[in-house]
Amino acid sequence: MLNQPNIRQMDTICRYTVDEYIDMLIQFHGNFAPGLLIGGFMVDAAVQQMTPYEFFDAICESTSCLPDAIQMLTPCTVGNGWLKIVNTGRFAIALYEKRSGDGVRVSMDVSKLDQCPEIRNWFMRLISKHDQDKNALLSEIKTAGRDILSIRPVKISSKLLGKRPRDPIALCESCGEAFPTNGSVLCPACKGVDLFEI
Amino acid sequence: MLNQPNIRQMDTICRYTVDEYIDMLIQFHGNFAPGLLIGGFMVDAAVQQMTPYEFFDAICESTSCLPDAIQMLTPCTVGNGWLKIVNTGRFAIALYEKRSGDGVRVSMDVSKLDQCPEIRNWFMRLISKHDQDKNALLSEIKTAGRDILSIRPVKISSKLLGKRPRDPIALCESCGEAFPTNGSVLCPACKGVDLFEI
Repeated sequence: MLNQPNIRQMDTICRYTVDEYIDMLIQFHGNFAPGLLIGGFMVDAAVQQMTPYEFFDAICESTSCLPDAIQMLTPCTVGNGWLKIVNTGRFAIALYEKRSGDGVRVSMDVSKLDQCPEIRNWFMRLISKHDQDKNALLSEIKTAGRDILSIRPVKISSKLLGKRPRDPIALCESCGEAFPTNGSVLCPACKGVDLFEI
Repeated sequence: MLNQPNIRQMDTICRYTVDEYIDMLIQFHGNFAPGLLIGGFMVDAAVQQMTPYEFFDAICESTSCLPDAIQMLTPCTVGNGWLKIVNTGRFAIALYEKRSGDGVRVSMDVSKLDQCPEIRNWFMRLISKHDQDKNALLSEIKTAGRDILSIRPVKISSKLLGKRPRDPIALCESCGEAFPTNGSVLCPACKGVDLFEI
């Protein structure tokens, strides 16, 4: 199902120039993060494969940086439930049609980093933040674009598809707050999630 | 530590008018969600308590709607790690100073819903989406503002504070992808998180 790969150097990320996207990511994420710029190229590559579909959901395999790229560039957010984070630790995202599970996975491909020493050192944590040459890293990421990524079609596991029926709301017998009951009279916090000392 | 509560009807949410915020939430979240408007008032109330601190982190106790209010209105996002989601099912957020854990928790207070039948019916899931009077619900939420919330000082459990040391990156012996190793030679996906059928 893969569309023709675009091998020219990427100068746009979705509907933004790369520099516009960098401004956006600093605004949303609070600071420049190399992983979020690479994440922009990843989302851009994935979205391009999803043009046959009207809507798509997203899975993000990392908690770091990548969720923000998806939230900035697609309609999928954590709060609307169209973005699920399944933390495998891998630097990868998947977009998929929500009923069939058909979609695309885009991941960082370490085997393609031979020409990108700054990206390799940062990504593999071979260098301290202090010793990073941030300008060289930024430049390498901009030049590499999609060249350091792997893109493959996937079908999402059926266990991850579909909506769970909504539980009725009850008041917790301990804290008195409302929560979606699942046969329990205590909310998960009162059952043992230890959030507050006071 | 609570600042003087502001009992006038709220016509702003952080630096936006309520209507500007509604436009923003539709843009970010994809559609109007009552919980996200209430979430705006919650974040606004919490942020106002955090003025003594230069920075704060956030905990969201629900996966639904509320994470987006925090991400739109504060510097805390899922991807930058300043927002943690600890799903207790309760409709509540906490903002806190990241070293001491001192902060504030804002939650929906069901005992304050007597004058708000539309909000009660929606929040307690007593009415189907189809039978909701959406305009009446929106109007009630705008009028209620903070009046349906509880605000209290908290100290976040020390277990949730501080950064975990970053694990070194290794290549998974099964899939070959990079992941933060934790003494394991297999990434969590290859250890059994079943994401893809293809």
